[in-house]
Amino acid sequence: MSEVKTKAIAAKEAATRMSYISTQMKNNVLLKMAENLESNKDEILKANKIDLENLAKKPGYTKAFHDRLELTAERITDMAEGLKEIQNLPDPVGEVISMWKRPNELEVGQVRVPLGVIGIIYEARPNVTVDAAGLAIKAGNAVILRGSSEAIESNKVLVKILKNACMESGLSEGTVSLIEDTDRAAAQELMQLNEYLDVLIPRGGSSLIKSVVENSTVPVIQTGEGICHTYIDKETDVDMAVKIAFNAKTNRPGVCNAMETLLVHKDISREVLPKIVKLLEEANVEVRGCAATREITPQAAPADEEDWRTEYLDLILSIRVVDSLDEAIEHINKYGTKHSEAIVTTSYNRSRKFMAQIDAAAVYVNVSTRYTDGNEFGLGAEMGISTQKLHARGPMGLKALTSIKYVIYGDGQIK
Amino acid sequence: MSEVKTKAIAAKEAATRMSYISTQMKNNVLLKMAENLESNKDEILKANKIDLENLAKKPGYTKAFHDRLELTAERITDMAEGLKEIQNLPDPVGEVISMWKRPNELEVGQVRVPLGVIGIIYEARPNVTVDAAGLAIKAGNAVILRGSSEAIESNKVLVKILKNACMESGLSEGTVSLIEDTDRAAAQELMQLNEYLDVLIPRGGSSLIKSVVENSTVPVIQTGEGICHTYIDKETDVDMAVKIAFNAKTNRPGVCNAMETLLVHKDISREVLPKIVKLLEEANVEVRGCAATREITPQAAPADEEDWRTEYLDLILSIRVVDSLDEAIEHINKYGTKHSEAIVTTSYNRSRKFMAQIDAAAVYVNVSTRYTDGNEFGLGAEMGISTQKLHARGPMGLKALTSIKYVIYGDGQIK
Repeated sequence: MSEVKTKAIAAKEAATRMSYISTQMKNNVLLKMAENLESNKDEILKANKIDLENLAKKPGYTKAFHDRLELTAERITDMAEGLKEIQNLPDPVGEVISMWKRPNELEVGQVRVPLGVIGIIYEARPNVTVDAAGLAIKAGNAVILRGSSEAIESNKVLVKILKNACMESGLSEGTVSLIEDTDRAAAQELMQLNEYLDVLIPRGGSSLIKSVVENSTVPVIQTGEGICHTYIDKETDVDMAVKIAFNAKTNRPGVCNAMETLLVHKDISREVLPKIVKLLEEANVEVRGCAATREITPQAAPADEEDWRTEYLDLILSIRVVDSLDEAIEHINKYGTKHSEAIVTTSYNRSRKFMAQIDAAAVYVNVSTRYTDGNEFGLGAEMGISTQKLHARGPMGLKALTSIKYVIYGDGQIK
Repeated sequence: MSEVKTKAIAAKEAATRMSYISTQMKNNVLLKMAENLESNKDEILKANKIDLENLAKKPGYTKAFHDRLELTAERITDMAEGLKEIQNLPDPVGEVISMWKRPNELEVGQVRVPLGVIGIIYEARPNVTVDAAGLAIKAGNAVILRGSSEAIESNKVLVKILKNACMESGLSEGTVSLIEDTDRAAAQELMQLNEYLDVLIPRGGSSLIKSVVENSTVPVIQTGEGICHTYIDKETDVDMAVKIAFNAKTNRPGVCNAMETLLVHKDISREVLPKIVKLLEEANVEVRGCAATREITPQAAPADEEDWRTEYLDLILSIRVVDSLDEAIEHINKYGTKHSEAIVTTSYNRSRKFMAQIDAAAVYVNVSTRYTDGNEFGLGAEMGISTQKLHARGPMGLKALTSIKYVIYGDGQIK
């Protein structure tokens, strides 16, 4: 039997047990994992060094890629601290969401239960190995991890440490597993294992996500891609608008909730654009604008249709002047990735319209889109930000890793 | 452009509008649809007659198939009444599920929104055309219907009538559409339209569902297949147990929440089996049993592994004697389809264990599994019964046809 199938079967068995163990036991495992990470730092760093050395031999990797792969003593401590934070979150499993009585005296309730087996397909960040396993376990699931080949030595050691913590705490080995075969075929096999996997969550760049969505028959939760907009309305507080837009672009341009396109109402564009473009230039942001933008701020390069469709993840911003709120909404619903969208306005009616008509995971009035994040929303650590509408939308906290079951209590009811 | 893509684009446009129209408007459309069905009975019956005549020319169709396809004046009235019932249900869209304030004064809330575009792939029951459209619209969605070739003439007329009601009420034509191309390739195309469809719901037999799950890259909600069990514990009220098991098998054997396998604890098997087997025989149920069952009731035919895996949907029952509650739970979690499972017991502790460890959409104590149904649970009409864990589980009422979005109100917060 293949490695993937063998591990999937073990995961499914482990998941059955996980579904009804106590919160205390799950918390103990998480603490044990944190402890074992700290006490095995040397082994982790040694394995990570091999990955880094292998990477150095291959051409074409950026410095940013190297940085994401690299572990340090401090980063290992951060991973351990992350597990302790997850341990502190309330257990979502067992919550009675609601319960009611029917006219025939049946009591019908909805109880929160784990999803079962969660598969994670991700890229070269070894911290995902630990974060994802911690969240999945706290929500009562078994987890199958499939990281990229570049991080394989680091991941092997990390998963060995997590597995040991499971076994020392009385959980089965199958609770956490790593697919060590980094061939594409192994990922492909994982994507078809509907009998064993309840969900697959890809974490990484848009090409990884696209490939999982297109090849998987296991249900997928799409995460990540963010072409986010800020719309500055004609009725606005200009200083606030400039501050919010500048923050949304420059605070951390490489992440999914950063702004990629700024929309400005034409009636206020002559006031807003010179201010914001000046600030952006000072921050080394490359500005690309529509014709109307370039009339006001000619230093902007021309933007075309392709720009509206691009997630730069960089210090680049496209700007478009719109004739109306309707045009702004239309632009966002057409080009956005349904991630995070903001209006800056002083108008009650126009804020209501924007909130009602924008189709996105997070819609903001007078706030930087950078707030789309599990911790900022108060959900605790997150598994990623879902940009689909099925099952989970927006930052996925522990509840997104659960399902429900109906429980029905009676005394002999028949039909 | 293909028919499928053209209609999908129109549906997506219609869905944008649908997402924020008033409850009043949606209700008006539903009432108008009901009215138009009643006033166009003759045209519907005429089209249905063509379908029935075409069916009669082809070999291999059962009487049950013919019955499902056939419409009568009364059945059309039932469809219209169904729409009126949906109209009476509360609108799920716009519900603020929860809202809270963060330490930085951000107000973060979760609001219920429509899913968007829902695709339904179904078999030869024309009433699904009307039910599915009604539920989808009430929850603020656009719907693309893809019925089977046998019902195509009926479906064309029904969808024309529903479309007219939309347009008379000021909604766009794309709100409801039918894929008239009944070739497999058209269904295949629909299953890949991730850009336009938010979810696909197959309604029909297990081979249809399997095909959609295996071929679709659009998220699918799996419905229907039910290998449901009743487990009679050693501590039980025998009369109640016999009554519940008999009802679960015989009340309506052709539906997904009917019992397919009865599990009986060995300590009570000599008392229970003769009683239940006698009743079942009187009701013309074919009984198949394990060796221990046949020792007590030799009239049972032998059951094998294949029986535990079979959804008979017929007057056939497999019976297995188990040594313990653990063995019953193991059997159910191994062979069940995670649909509806019941224990009949007088023991508090054993009922708790069963509820905690059985992995199914609906888990019952002392009730017939036949109750798994949107109306019986108090959810109103249902789109089907989900047997998957992602997004929706169990009977899918209107809420299962919605998603959420985060709304965030602030006053200039930046990071």
